[in-house]
Amino acid sequence: MPKKNFAQSTFFLIFSYKGYLVKRLAVDLLWIAIPTTILCAIHELGHVDIETNFTLPGLMGAILGILLVFRNNTAYDRWWEARKVLGGLVNTSRNYALQVKQLLPDSKEKTELFGLISAFPFVLKEHLRSGVIYQELDFLDEEIIKELKNWDHVPNAVNQLIQVRLKSVYDRGEITDFQLLKLIENSDELIDIMGKCERIHKTPMPQSHTYLLRAYIYIYAIIMPLGLIENLEWWTIPAVIIIYYVAMSIVTISEEIEDPFGLDPNDLPVDNIANNIYKNIQEIITK
Amino acid sequence: MPKKNFAQSTFFLIFSYKGYLVKRLAVDLLWIAIPTTILCAIHELGHVDIETNFTLPGLMGAILGILLVFRNNTAYDRWWEARKVLGGLVNTSRNYALQVKQLLPDSKEKTELFGLISAFPFVLKEHLRSGVIYQELDFLDEEIIKELKNWDHVPNAVNQLIQVRLKSVYDRGEITDFQLLKLIENSDELIDIMGKCERIHKTPMPQSHTYLLRAYIYIYAIIMPLGLIENLEWWTIPAVIIIYYVAMSIVTISEEIEDPFGLDPNDLPVDNIANNIYKNIQEIITK
Amino acid sequence: MPKKNFAQSTFFLIFSYKGYLVKRLAVDLLWIAIPTTILCAIHELGHVDIETNFTLPGLMGAILGILLVFRNNTAYDRWWEARKVLGGLVNTSRNYALQVKQLLPDSKEKTELFGLISAFPFVLKEHLRSGVIYQELDFLDEEIIKELKNWDHVPNAVNQLIQVRLKSVYDRGEITDFQLLKLIENSDELIDIMGKCERIHKTPMPQSHTYLLRAYIYIYAIIMPLGLIENLEWWTIPAVIIIYYVAMSIVTISEEIEDPFGLDPNDLPVDNIANNIYKNIQEIITK
Amino acid sequence: MPKKNFAQSTFFLIFSYKGYLVKRLAVDLLWIAIPTTILCAIHELGHVDIETNFTLPGLMGAILGILLVFRNNTAYDRWWEARKVLGGLVNTSRNYALQVKQLLPDSKEKTELFGLISAFPFVLKEHLRSGVIYQELDFLDEEIIKELKNWDHVPNAVNQLIQVRLKSVYDRGEITDFQLLKLIENSDELIDIMGKCERIHKTPMPQSHTYLLRAYIYIYAIIMPLGLIENLEWWTIPAVIIIYYVAMSIVTISEEIEDPFGLDPNDLPVDNIANNIYKNIQEIITK
Amino acid sequence: MPKKNFAQSTFFLIFSYKGYLVKRLAVDLLWIAIPTTILCAIHELGHVDIETNFTLPGLMGAILGILLVFRNNTAYDRWWEARKVLGGLVNTSRNYALQVKQLLPDSKEKTELFGLISAFPFVLKEHLRSGVIYQELDFLDEEIIKELKNWDHVPNAVNQLIQVRLKSVYDRGEITDFQLLKLIENSDELIDIMGKCERIHKTPMPQSHTYLLRAYIYIYAIIMPLGLIENLEWWTIPAVIIIYYVAMSIVTISEEIEDPFGLDPNDLPVDNIANNIYKNIQEIITK
Repeated sequence: MPKKNFAQSTFFLIFSYKGYLVKRLAVDLLWIAIPTTILCAIHELGHVDIETNFTLPGLMGAILGILLVFRNNTAYDRWWEARKVLGGLVNTSRNYALQVKQLLPDSKEKTELFGLISAFPFVLKEHLRSGVIYQELDFLDEEIIKELKNWDHVPNAVNQLIQVRLKSVYDRGEITDFQLLKLIENSDELIDIMGKCERIHKTPMPQSHTYLLRAYIYIYAIIMPLGLIENLEWWTIPAVIIIYYVAMSIVTISEEIEDPFGLDPNDLPVDNIANNIYKNIQEIITK
Repeated sequence: MPKKNFAQSTFFLIFSYKGYLVKRLAVDLLWIAIPTTILCAIHELGHVDIETNFTLPGLMGAILGILLVFRNNTAYDRWWEARKVLGGLVNTSRNYALQVKQLLPDSKEKTELFGLISAFPFVLKEHLRSGVIYQELDFLDEEIIKELKNWDHVPNAVNQLIQVRLKSVYDRGEITDFQLLKLIENSDELIDIMGKCERIHKTPMPQSHTYLLRAYIYIYAIIMPLGLIENLEWWTIPAVIIIYYVAMSIVTISEEIEDPFGLDPNDLPVDNIANNIYKNIQEIITK
Repeated sequence: MPKKNFAQSTFFLIFSYKGYLVKRLAVDLLWIAIPTTILCAIHELGHVDIETNFTLPGLMGAILGILLVFRNNTAYDRWWEARKVLGGLVNTSRNYALQVKQLLPDSKEKTELFGLISAFPFVLKEHLRSGVIYQELDFLDEEIIKELKNWDHVPNAVNQLIQVRLKSVYDRGEITDFQLLKLIENSDELIDIMGKCERIHKTPMPQSHTYLLRAYIYIYAIIMPLGLIENLEWWTIPAVIIIYYVAMSIVTISEEIEDPFGLDPNDLPVDNIANNIYKNIQEIITK
Repeated sequence: MPKKNFAQSTFFLIFSYKGYLVKRLAVDLLWIAIPTTILCAIHELGHVDIETNFTLPGLMGAILGILLVFRNNTAYDRWWEARKVLGGLVNTSRNYALQVKQLLPDSKEKTELFGLISAFPFVLKEHLRSGVIYQELDFLDEEIIKELKNWDHVPNAVNQLIQVRLKSVYDRGEITDFQLLKLIENSDELIDIMGKCERIHKTPMPQSHTYLLRAYIYIYAIIMPLGLIENLEWWTIPAVIIIYYVAMSIVTISEEIEDPFGLDPNDLPVDNIANNIYKNIQEIITK
Repeated sequence: MPKKNFAQSTFFLIFSYKGYLVKRLAVDLLWIAIPTTILCAIHELGHVDIETNFTLPGLMGAILGILLVFRNNTAYDRWWEARKVLGGLVNTSRNYALQVKQLLPDSKEKTELFGLISAFPFVLKEHLRSGVIYQELDFLDEEIIKELKNWDHVPNAVNQLIQVRLKSVYDRGEITDFQLLKLIENSDELIDIMGKCERIHKTPMPQSHTYLLRAYIYIYAIIMPLGLIENLEWWTIPAVIIIYYVAMSIVTISEEIEDPFGLDPNDLPVDNIANNIYKNIQEIITK
C-alpha cells in the first residue's frame, strides 16, 4: 500500500477522524476535566501544597498498559477471525455453486439451489443485525420467501431448504449417494460459518475486563495530576485530557471492532461481501 | 457495541462490580494493610529512619508484570477456547439434527435420536459441574433416562445410545454403509467437544505459576512501602492497598474465567447455549 | 544463515536501505523538522524559558509502544500467512498434476488440465495486482485464452474450465465417481487459496489503527522537544528526527508488507513461485 | 475456581513450595551470595568507593525481561500443547472403542482390540519415560505381551497388532472395505498423537537460548550490586538473592514444565489419564 | 528436565558457548569498540565536556526492544514449526509403511515402496541443503537410483515413483479404488511436508526487518556512550561492548535457528530423524 501525500493522509485525516472519536468521548472527557481543574485551582489559587509523588501512577500505569495491550489484541483478533470466517463464506459459496453446476442435471431444483446459496450471505448478515431484509432477496421465488418467513432462525431455514432440494434430486436418482454427501458437506460448512459469526457476535468480553479497564483508566486519570501539577501547573489539564483521550481511544476502538458485523465506521464490509458472492455465482451460472 | 452513557456504564458499575471483587479480596487486603500500617507507625511515630530505595521493587515489578501478563492471557485463552468449543457444540448439534432429518426415514429411532442429540448439551454441562440434572431432560423417554442412570459418564452414555440407534436403522437397511459412517462422524465430533471441555475443566494451571504469582505479589506488597514511605507517609497505606488490589484483581478474574463452565459471574452462558440448541432442533424437526 | 562480512552486510547496506526509506519519509521529516526548529530557535535565541517536563511524553511513549508492537506484529502475521498460502499453492498444484497424471488416461483433456493447473498461479497473482497478463499464459491454447477473456474473475474461470474437463472425462467413464470427487477436492483447495489471498489483499487494517498510530507518532514528535530542549539545545533537532524516523520506519515497513502480493522491495517473490510451479509440473509431465 | 482461604492457599503454601524451589536453587544461590558478599565487604569495611551507576543493569534487565518472557511462554505452550495431545488421546481411544463396539461382530479379535486400545496409553506414557512397565498391562493376554516384548518401539507394536486384528476381521468379510479404512483412521490418529508426544519430549529448546539466559541472569546478578550498594549497603546481599531467586524460579519452572511427561511436581497427570481411559473403555464394553 | 550441577551446566558452558558466539561477533565488536574508545579518549584525555543526556538512547532502546522481541519470537516460531513438520514426517512415514504392509499383498512393488518411503526423508533433507547424497540411499535398487538421478527435484521424483508403483498394484486389481486413494493421501501428505520445509527454508525475513534491526543496534551502540561516559569513564568501553554483545547475540541466534535444516549448532537433528524413520520402518517390515 503506497503511502499517500502526508498532508492528505495524516495531517488532515487525523482531525476528521479525531472529531468522530472526540464526539464519542466528549462526556467522559468532561468527567475528567472537572476534577483535574478543581485540583489545579486549589493548588494554584489556594496556594495549597500538594504532595507530588509520581511513583504510584507509574506502577498503576504498568498494569494499565498490560490491560490495554490485552484489550487491543483480543479485539483485533476477533475482528480478524470474523474476516477469516467471511472469507470462508466467499469460498464455500463459490465452491457450492461450482459443484451444483457440475454435478446436477438441469432442473427446477438446480435453479433454486443457486438462488438459495446466493441468499445465504444476505440472510446471515441481517440475522447478525436486526432481522432479515426480504427486499435484498428479490432474486428468490415468492414461494421460498414465504417459507422463510415462517422461521425464527432464517439462516437455518435456508440451509434446510437447500438440503430438501438436494434430497429430492437424490431421490430421483440424478446424483449418487456419495455425491449427495459431498454436496451436503458444503451445507455443513455454511452452518459452521454461521456458528462462528454468532459466537463472535454474541459473546461479549468478560465483563470483569471491560469494567475494570474503564475503572482503572478513570482512577488513573484522577490520581495522575498529583504527579504532574508541581511541574506543569495549569498545563496539567490538557496533559491529563490527552493521556485520558489516548488511552480511551484504544478502548473505544476495541469495543467498535470486536463485534465487526454492524455498521460502525471500522466494521467489516459485510454488505459488499454478500453482493460480491452474488455476482460471482451469477458469473458461474451464466458461463 | 455502542458505548453507553458514561455515568451509567462506567462510573456506577465500577463500584457495584468492585464491591463484588472487594468481598473476594477482603481477607487478603487485611493481611497487606496490617504490616504496612505497622511500618508506617514505626516510621511516623517512632521517628525511625527507614532506608528508602525503590530500585528493588522496580526490578521485581518488571518480573511481576511478566507473570501477570502471562496469567491474564492464558486464562483468557482458555475462556475463549471454551467458547469456541461450545460454538462447535451448537454447530455439530444443528448439523446432526439436520442430517438425521434428511437421511433417516421416519421411525421410533429417528424421534429418539432428536431427543438424544438435544439432551447431549444438558448432560455435558452438568457433567462438568456436579452431576446430571435429570429434570432438565424431561423431553426424553422414561426408558432412556433409566438407562442413562446406570452410567457414571453420562455424556458417553448418550453417545453410545445414539450409535446404537443408528446401528439398528442401518441393520434394517434404511441407510447405506456410507451414510452410517457420515452420521457417526457427528458423534465423534461430540465426543471430541466433550473431551476438550473436560481438558479445560480438569487441567489447573501449573501450580508453580499459581503459587509463585500470588507469593510474589504478596512479597512485592510487603517490600513496596519501603520505597514510598518517605514521600507518601500515611498515604502509603491506601497506595499499597490500591496497587495490591489492582494486581490481585487480575489474578482473581483469571482464576474465575479459566474454568468457565461454572456459575461465576464471568462464566460462559452454558445454560442458555443448551436451551438454544434445544430450540433450534425443535425448529428443525417441526418445519 | 551464515552472517556475512560485517562491513558488507550491515554497515553499507544500512545506508542504501535507509536511502530508500529516507525517500519515502522525506516529506514527513520536513513537517517534523520545521516545528522543532522553531521551538529550538525560540528557546535558544529568544532566551524564553520553556517548561521541561518529560513525564507526559513518557506516558504517551508507552501507549505508542503498544500500538507499534501491534502494528508490526499484525503486518508480519499477514505477510507470513500470505507466504503459507502461497506454499499451499505450490503443494496443491504439484499434487493436482501428479494425480491427473496417475488417474487419467491420455487424452486432449489431460493435456489441457496440465496447462490450466500451471496457469492458475499466473492468473491468480495478476488478479491480485492489476489484471491478468495473457502473455504469461502462452503455453495455453488460443481457444482457452479466448474463453478466459470473457470472464471478469479469471481465477474462477480457470477453475471452472478445469472442472468442465474433469466432468467430460468422467462422463466418458474414464474415471470413477470417487476419483472425480477426489480430483475436484484439489480445485476446492485452489479456490480456498485464492480466497485467502483475496482476503489478505482486500482487507486493510481498521482505519482507526492506521490513522491513530500516525497521529500519535506525530503528536508525540511535536511534544517530545519540550522534554529534551533543556539538555540537548540545538541537538534536539537531530534527536527528534531520529526518533520520528525510527518509529515511522516501522509503520512504513508494516504498510509495505501487509499487502505482500505487489512489487514493493519487501513483497513476496510471487512471480518466482508461479514460475517454479510451472517448472515442477513440466518435470512431472515429462518424466 | 473459588479462591480458598488466603492463609491456607497462599501464605503457607508459598513456603512449602518455595522450599522445594530453594532446594533446587541452593547451590546457585551460593555462587551468587559469595561474590556479592565480597563486594559488600570491600565497600563497607574497606571504605573503598565503588562507582554506582545503575544504567547498565537497567539496559541488560530489559533484554533479560525479553528472554524471560520468551522462556516462560514457550515452556507453557509446550505444556499446554502436551495437554491437548493427551486430551486427543482420551477422545480417540473412546471413539475407537465405541466404533469397534458398534461395527464389529463379537469375536476373539474384538476382545483383543478393546485390550490393545486400552493398553496404548499405558504403553505410550512409559515409552516417553524409561520403558514399558508390563505389570500395568495385566489385562492383556500373555501371548500379546510376549509379542510386544520383541519390539523396541512398543507403541508402534500395539498399533500394528491392532491393524493385524482389523485386517483379519476384514478378511473374514465381517466389515466392509470402507469400514476397515474408517477404523484404521483411528490408528493413524493414535500414531499421530504418539508422534506429537515424542516431538515435545525429544526436542530440547535451542541450546543457545537455554545457556544464554542462564548466563545473562548470572552476569546480571554479578553486576547488579554495583547499582545497589550505595543505597542498600549490607542489605544488597538479600536484595540480589531475591532478584536472582525470582528470575531463576521462572527458568527452573520452565525447564520443569517444558517436558511434561515425567514425574516432576508440575508434570501432567499422565498416569491418571491412562487409568481414566481404561475405565471409560470398560464402561463402553460392559453397557 | 532436571537441572544439572550448576558449575557444569551453567558456569563453564557459558564460556565455551560464548566462545562460539564471540568468534561470530568478533569483527562487529571491533567496529563498536573503536569509536567508543575514541570517544572515551577525547573525554578523558582531552578534557572535553560531552553532553550527557541518556533520554535519547532510552527512547531508542524501547523501539529496539520491540524489534528484538519480534526477531527472537519469529525465528523461534519458524524453528518450532520446522520441528512440527519433521514430526509430521515421522508420523506420515510410519503410517504409510503400516498401511502398505496391511493393505498390499507381497510383491516386488511392496518391497520397493518400503524402500522409497524410507528414502524420502534422506532425499528431503539433502534437497534442503546442497543436493541429494546417493550414498545414504544404498538400501534402494540401483535401477531406482538411476531413475532419481534424472530429476532436478528429487523428493518429487520419489513421490512419483511411489505413485507409479501404487498404480500398477491397483491396475493388477490387488487393491480397491478406495484403498488406492487412501494410500495416495499419504503421498499428498509427504508433498505437503516437503512444501512446508521449502517454505521455511526459502523465505528469508523481510529484508527491512533484518537490516533495520542491525542498523538500529549499531546506531544505538554509537549513541549510548554519550549517556554513560560521565559516570563510567573508561568503564564505558566494556559496558558498551557487553550491551552490544547481548543484543547481537539474540540477532545472531535468531539468524541461526530461523533456517533450521542446516548444520549449525542449534539446527534440528534432521539426520537423526531420517535414520529413526528408517529404523522404525525396518521394524514394521520385519515383524
